[in-house]
Amino acid sequence: MNASPDWLAEVTWNERGLLPAIAQDYRSGRVLMMAWMNSESLQQSVSGGYAVYWSRSRQALWKKGETSGNRQRIISVSLDCDGDTLLLQIEQEGGIACHTGRESCFFRQLDADNQWQSTEPVLRLPEDLYGVSDG
Amino acid sequence: MNASPDWLAEVTWNERGLLPAIAQDYRSGRVLMMAWMNSESLQQSVSGGYAVYWSRSRQALWKKGETSGNRQRIISVSLDCDGDTLLLQIEQEGGIACHTGRESCFFRQLDADNQWQSTEPVLRLPEDLYGVSDG
Repeated sequence: MNASPDWLAEVTWNERGLLPAIAQDYRSGRVLMMAWMNSESLQQSVSGGYAVYWSRSRQALWKKGETSGNRQRIISVSLDCDGDTLLLQIEQEGGIACHTGRESCFFRQLDADNQWQSTEPVLRLPEDLYGVSDG
Repeated sequence: MNASPDWLAEVTWNERGLLPAIAQDYRSGRVLMMAWMNSESLQQSVSGGYAVYWSRSRQALWKKGETSGNRQRIISVSLDCDGDTLLLQIEQEGGIACHTGRESCFFRQLDADNQWQSTEPVLRLPEDLYGVSDG
């Protein structure tokens, strides 16, 4: 794999070499999560067809779903006008993107009283997704 | 307005006091853009009902659509599991979110030959949106 093919040269990375990637369910249109990619994770995502992010907390490549099985098959990759944010249309295997066991990470909505209210159920318990450890 | 109401205390800001906010058309489900908010812009967005971002390039509050008229009326605000990313369901006035005059900022899609291809038309020329200056 070429270290910096033309298409990668059009991507603008932040001062840490990362950019945000939004994962959207290609069928329902639901926004499932936002995570970060570095150049290597983006290249692996594109070449392998499944989302690979960069874990800022672990400072390591994060093959989404490697433990839980909830991989994200990439349907398309789009770049925004500034070249500094990606939008992935994905098929969410297992129907769960969030480590809390919910479909989407965006499960708290601000209500009319300005309180965050959980708006969706836990589909699978995290301990079922990950065994005894988290991640 | 209280400087740090409870709901704001649950938001996790990055080292610059910002977090990413994804704007999604509440009807079509299209992801239109991603921009940044600081505490003040989020409070103004929630209290005023229209998206206010923080312009990192201008280091100033950015009332989206103030010049172009393409304001974003907020339907709902959701917070992700880590509390560090927002998803806004919005009504995009004028039907154009992107400063290039397109509906969405994510108008370049990686094709099978790994080339970024523009996937949507310019609906209004930027000079019509902004007059002679950009912004």
